[in-house]
Amino acid sequence: MKHILMFGAGGKSSIFIVEYLSELVKEKNWKLTLCDRNLDALSAKIGNPSYIDYKTTDIIDNNKRSDLISSADFVISMLPAFLHNLVAKDCLNHSKNMVTASYVSEEMKALDEQVKEKGLLFMNEIGVDPGLDHMSAKRVIDEIHELGGKFSRFETFTGGLIDPKSDNNPLNYKFTWNPRFVVIAGSSGSVKFLQEGQYKYIPYHRLFRRTELIEIENYGMFEGYANRDSLKYIKSYNLEGIKTMYRGTFRRPGFSRFWDVFVQLGATDDHYTLENSDQLTFRSFINSFLVYHPNDSVELKLMHYLKLDYDSDIMSKLKWLGVFEETKVPLKNATPAQILQYILEQKLKLEEGDNDMIVMWHKFIYELNGKQYDRESSLVCIGEGSTHTAMAKTVGLPLAIYTKHFLEGRIKKTGVHIPITADVYEPVLKELEDHGIVFKEKVVEH
Amino acid sequence: MKHILMFGAGGKSSIFIVEYLSELVKEKNWKLTLCDRNLDALSAKIGNPSYIDYKTTDIIDNNKRSDLISSADFVISMLPAFLHNLVAKDCLNHSKNMVTASYVSEEMKALDEQVKEKGLLFMNEIGVDPGLDHMSAKRVIDEIHELGGKFSRFETFTGGLIDPKSDNNPLNYKFTWNPRFVVIAGSSGSVKFLQEGQYKYIPYHRLFRRTELIEIENYGMFEGYANRDSLKYIKSYNLEGIKTMYRGTFRRPGFSRFWDVFVQLGATDDHYTLENSDQLTFRSFINSFLVYHPNDSVELKLMHYLKLDYDSDIMSKLKWLGVFEETKVPLKNATPAQILQYILEQKLKLEEGDNDMIVMWHKFIYELNGKQYDRESSLVCIGEGSTHTAMAKTVGLPLAIYTKHFLEGRIKKTGVHIPITADVYEPVLKELEDHGIVFKEKVVEH
Repeated sequence: MKHILMFGAGGKSSIFIVEYLSELVKEKNWKLTLCDRNLDALSAKIGNPSYIDYKTTDIIDNNKRSDLISSADFVISMLPAFLHNLVAKDCLNHSKNMVTASYVSEEMKALDEQVKEKGLLFMNEIGVDPGLDHMSAKRVIDEIHELGGKFSRFETFTGGLIDPKSDNNPLNYKFTWNPRFVVIAGSSGSVKFLQEGQYKYIPYHRLFRRTELIEIENYGMFEGYANRDSLKYIKSYNLEGIKTMYRGTFRRPGFSRFWDVFVQLGATDDHYTLENSDQLTFRSFINSFLVYHPNDSVELKLMHYLKLDYDSDIMSKLKWLGVFEETKVPLKNATPAQILQYILEQKLKLEEGDNDMIVMWHKFIYELNGKQYDRESSLVCIGEGSTHTAMAKTVGLPLAIYTKHFLEGRIKKTGVHIPITADVYEPVLKELEDHGIVFKEKVVEH
Repeated sequence: MKHILMFGAGGKSSIFIVEYLSELVKEKNWKLTLCDRNLDALSAKIGNPSYIDYKTTDIIDNNKRSDLISSADFVISMLPAFLHNLVAKDCLNHSKNMVTASYVSEEMKALDEQVKEKGLLFMNEIGVDPGLDHMSAKRVIDEIHELGGKFSRFETFTGGLIDPKSDNNPLNYKFTWNPRFVVIAGSSGSVKFLQEGQYKYIPYHRLFRRTELIEIENYGMFEGYANRDSLKYIKSYNLEGIKTMYRGTFRRPGFSRFWDVFVQLGATDDHYTLENSDQLTFRSFINSFLVYHPNDSVELKLMHYLKLDYDSDIMSKLKWLGVFEETKVPLKNATPAQILQYILEQKLKLEEGDNDMIVMWHKFIYELNGKQYDRESSLVCIGEGSTHTAMAKTVGLPLAIYTKHFLEGRIKKTGVHIPITADVYEPVLKELEDHGIVFKEKVVEH
């Protein structure tokens, strides 16, 4: 009898985890406790079988959180990343194993020794990106290394985009996951990667002008920009000595250059609040980043500031979005990023009948037995409506499947980890195939 | 008998404080204790009179710091700003008054209630900028308010620059204070100001392209860029309802546009360290921010990236600085900002015989008795050599003079304050005139 406790169960990325684990605990006679601040929508979907408990808990309440964790055998945190640490410390105190889909934070990393001492395993980065990217890439890397091959290049891109069938706007983009993270994407620090043996660094305000174009068969062209620190995975992927290491994010071509308008203005800043933000309009919000002039229009000032032509693609996209309109912003004490998000949400929401799409693409160049090979792996996953999105599926299933295999005793290691070893990625990737998550591989000899 | 304790006494901006207070304690039969990590240079200058104690103390040592503070009557912190809080907490514990020349941090502000309860006064922002700017501007503002006037505009700029007689390089700039703060200037968050009733925000990566030109009689043209949050002083200056409020920093014309090259590259970033920084050269440092190409030169890539002409002023300044040379960077685990500082220090150090210059300029527009007035106040202070700089003088003397008047019982308030009331600015500004720190005023009726 195992008792699984899940925080953040009501979140957008949790539905596949909840459904998968409901089946699992039913079959095994285990128990599943689902926690979130609001569980009404979830319980309406899942119902009230005896093997599921709902707990409407504020995660910040130390006593309640600690009590819940002490009563569980295994803890899933699908909370916002900055809250994992609260859960992790309780898991350590009560000697419980846990899993998250988020990047390993410095605080999480610092727990490694203590986690090991208690014989526990805290698995992280086991969603889609990070997660599925690690597992699918590392499987190829380990395979080629075992054959005696040596990598000179690894590039990987993931994008949370829109099903081409639902793609009906000039940005070729809709919010398929938390819009907040889309607005602040890339702003958390300088981007680092390795290209032909040279370390390269891109500051945030240049990121969206340093893109590359990639074609994926049957799905057309994508545009990628660099994602965070690619260097830290060189060691964990066993790629020491590699010449090019690049992790990136996919958008459709043209998106990044358009997005750069907001970056240049400072409209994606999430670190300060605007004065009188609830008295702004979309137009005066844009104007607050432009030079003062008693008569010149916001349009002209913007075009001049960012060197845009009136008949440019970018200007027509801005007009379509409505950024020059005198529509009221109803947000008090809002940051630029929050207001921008509000403006974008008016036009970029998933509509009834829309599906999302996850695209992942890896490129490996390696030498094996004196020959050089190019290998591409790609995955395209299309969502099914606004709840069972491809995002929720590719974030949730890896974590849910991992949970099963861990609780069935198949994964033995201890410490703070990410899914880059065969004991983890083999069973997870194998079972993901049953759910239609299958990589297409293409190898070309040079 | 009073005992003054000064932390950071060995720093560049401390010499005038130490000299002023040495005289004071000698005359009054008081005592002065000077603390820093290294005091050799200072004690060589000041000597060892009976009324001065030297303490080579690590400020981080909680017990030693607390002991020192408990034995003093008044504490001066000329430490780096992030360390004031350690001193402030001990001052609160031991009920000691203190003073700093730094911006009031959130932590400092939060102590206000407790400081008041204990009947103490923690004075901050009483250097040059912030400090002398507050006092000289607020004196004018209070004067006009008393006459029944109303302000529509206040602009203020300060620059730590080079004496025109020592100005012999194409940047018209040398490091006259801590180079680190010059390199990261403006990067601490978005800039905010008010212009003609509109709130304006400039992100860091645009700051150095949003300048204005100002002429100061006999000293030529200066260029100003916006400095931090101007809005927060509207209330403390009693300027509610003003239409334009702008605080800025002076450079010589052309500097900001040149500096923007480093900002655009990301070379001023101080938040991450470069891989293998001690294997970089000036040239490969610049190249690490540019796109990879197997053959193209760093010069061409830079010119293309930032849209610079080969025969432009900016390119010739970059060449003069030596950024394209294969000179080794001898710094381990260095941030971009640290490496850039090293490169700049090769060419921008104060040389034997050089003097620095502080320039401060205020512009007020106000209505009084139905008429509109333009008023400008300006201050130019030229340093005397590499120790008795204008920077050290204008930072140190306001703080030192304040200390005297406070200890003589003339300043009675309690809490966390900045020098914007007549009880503080009147005696300080009056005595500064004896030291040649005099504002030139010019009033024109419209």
